[in-house]
Amino acid sequence: MRIDLDANATTPVLPQVLEAMQPFWSERYGNPSSTHLAGQRTRGAVEHARISVASLLHCSPKEIVFTSGGTESDNLALCGILQPWLDRKASGDIAKDEPAHLITSQIEHHAVLFAAESLERRGIEVTYLAPDSNGVVNPADVEAALRPHTKLVSVMLANNETGAIQPVGKIARIAKAHGAFVHTDAVQAAAKLPLDLSGEFKNVDLLSISGHKIYGPQGTGALFVRQGVQLAPLFLGGPHERQRRAGTENVPGIVGLGRAAELASTWLEGQDHQLLARHGQSPAAPIPGSQSPAELAARRNHFERRLLALIPGASINAADAPRISNTIHLRIDGIDAETLVITLDLQEISTSFGSACMSGAAEPSHVLVAMGLTPQQARSSLRLSLSRLTTDEEIERALEIIPAAVAQLRSVS
Amino acid sequence: MRIDLDANATTPVLPQVLEAMQPFWSERYGNPSSTHLAGQRTRGAVEHARISVASLLHCSPKEIVFTSGGTESDNLALCGILQPWLDRKASGDIAKDEPAHLITSQIEHHAVLFAAESLERRGIEVTYLAPDSNGVVNPADVEAALRPHTKLVSVMLANNETGAIQPVGKIARIAKAHGAFVHTDAVQAAAKLPLDLSGEFKNVDLLSISGHKIYGPQGTGALFVRQGVQLAPLFLGGPHERQRRAGTENVPGIVGLGRAAELASTWLEGQDHQLLARHGQSPAAPIPGSQSPAELAARRNHFERRLLALIPGASINAADAPRISNTIHLRIDGIDAETLVITLDLQEISTSFGSACMSGAAEPSHVLVAMGLTPQQARSSLRLSLSRLTTDEEIERALEIIPAAVAQLRSVS
Repeated sequence: MRIDLDANATTPVLPQVLEAMQPFWSERYGNPSSTHLAGQRTRGAVEHARISVASLLHCSPKEIVFTSGGTESDNLALCGILQPWLDRKASGDIAKDEPAHLITSQIEHHAVLFAAESLERRGIEVTYLAPDSNGVVNPADVEAALRPHTKLVSVMLANNETGAIQPVGKIARIAKAHGAFVHTDAVQAAAKLPLDLSGEFKNVDLLSISGHKIYGPQGTGALFVRQGVQLAPLFLGGPHERQRRAGTENVPGIVGLGRAAELASTWLEGQDHQLLARHGQSPAAPIPGSQSPAELAARRNHFERRLLALIPGASINAADAPRISNTIHLRIDGIDAETLVITLDLQEISTSFGSACMSGAAEPSHVLVAMGLTPQQARSSLRLSLSRLTTDEEIERALEIIPAAVAQLRSVS
Repeated sequence: MRIDLDANATTPVLPQVLEAMQPFWSERYGNPSSTHLAGQRTRGAVEHARISVASLLHCSPKEIVFTSGGTESDNLALCGILQPWLDRKASGDIAKDEPAHLITSQIEHHAVLFAAESLERRGIEVTYLAPDSNGVVNPADVEAALRPHTKLVSVMLANNETGAIQPVGKIARIAKAHGAFVHTDAVQAAAKLPLDLSGEFKNVDLLSISGHKIYGPQGTGALFVRQGVQLAPLFLGGPHERQRRAGTENVPGIVGLGRAAELASTWLEGQDHQLLARHGQSPAAPIPGSQSPAELAARRNHFERRLLALIPGASINAADAPRISNTIHLRIDGIDAETLVITLDLQEISTSFGSACMSGAAEPSHVLVAMGLTPQQARSSLRLSLSRLTTDEEIERALEIIPAAVAQLRSVS
């Protein structure tokens, strides 16, 4: 049985999610825009899912726009805020030389980074902030980078490679006080950290999540758009999603995303399933693995400690940063991580170097390079990301296989 | 049991499609960009689906870009061709006053129409051709509208409301001879008509399809992009889909779309399932309803003839146009179609007026108005669209209910 230590790349769909989606393929199929009952029943299911996602994020259902995934959500956030400004400039509504400015970071996912570069080519000024050596963006750097015409600040919540959590609450407060909009890519943070858009993140205007990173279906995602924020759509067509995203809704996918959000809410609260059951509530059936973030963190910490003890020359990237509870970014002196990933793959362990999205790239990870690692160090770095389903037995088996694989690679070279 | 006469809005997912998707939710889940075996197995499944879709369209698998649906495909086609031109103008690479021109029609889906209007606001010249009274665009009008700087011609293959088939082969030949790119929205034509991109449509450069209109999953679609056509992506991020569409692939969705394409190929050929089985091939299990386009057309024609005979003052919109084999656009003097849709809904028949995407709109259908119908006539028009699964029994039941409902509405008013 393969051991999945690559949960940051994608997660399996939980059985409860599949079960929730099941009726909407053919029993209760319909187009939510249809006026007849068959359509309207699916409209109800979409709106129920919207409430579930809003509940995970502590926002209003009206503030949730369903998308096809994290990349679309990120692109929609950046272009939705800044493209209208470019259009007004092109049409002469505002002066040709009036500047607009975007602040982002060097460690963003390429869905943000390449959108920023595209906007830059079209005339938006962009600042790409460097993180510190732990892969964390400093709020003081955001403050220093603000210009009178800064329109948007986009800093991710948790980095997909290192797992480093960014001080987005603080960054948002600073940017907001300045009058800029704030976006955060929460694709890797959602369902791992509590995300409170009414509390800690009340200054965040836009937040991206992805279904397949939170045990929901691939091809689904959402963008939180705070009430009052004017967003230009990326897709034009029907008036779906309150004119913010045209196209027939992916009903089974949205229902699955909603169910995944409900399960994530329960999991984040670390609720006692038996207790819930005693109170007649419907708990998520317990799954093997971690029942709460604390349990997952304990499992990860044990795994990390043992790896460091068993592998000479091993260290943790972003070790001193606050990190999401499932991620280990392990640097091993003298080891080529790509070779190690392949070696482990042959022994039925899934791991990764860099992000899945950029695998096969010749360049070392832009995230690690931005943190100040040498290309050599970056190429010696392996990502191990646990899922909620990862068991103690899998961790113990990995602790036998990984150090042995490293020793073997070293003996060969 | 509800009778679905609204198949142009959405279709159920066929059992064979669901079965094909099933393993990819949790048994064989993975990110196709991951280098390990779990990821690479899903890469294989995605590429298999690409071959199935290419085979339906008679093109190369490399020419298929998977998207989240018809709207994305349409937007990607128009913006992917024309946005780079706007960008070059903005950056000063080409002169500010150098024009570019798009030809489209007044009867397009809003995913094309609103994308065209958006491009127009940004400086592209757009011609919106009127159809004739049968809802068909005249190739001579396309020829007359061509300008030296016409970059793209986008005319749909079959209209979603009337079902009228457009002479896209001829239009494409004319446009191509002029040096313009050609896009066609084939969302309603795919899997209803044979689409041969190596034959009849060899001059088409871009063609959109949607999964949920061809008995595949919602949230899936594809854009055919002919080899050599430079297309700017709508989504920026990872290098997925040969740099034409960033974002983790929706593996189960793509697998489902591929299977739906295979079933459509078989259905279009009207293959004898028993014969296939005798030759040891794996046929699609026969479904109740129509086994071929000819069988569906016969069923539709019978239904249409009987409706005209049973309902005084009834006529067919686009009656003299070539039409896809499942659609009836019925105009009934003195009847408000919206009221009739609701009346039929209460009797468990799903029908529609206008397109599902624009339902609830106060304006009469832009398609019918463009054909020269009065707003009154447009509001008296009902769309009945059969699916492959529609049975004779359902048709006979509908033939009892619909004329009676019309008579009842007339007696009340």
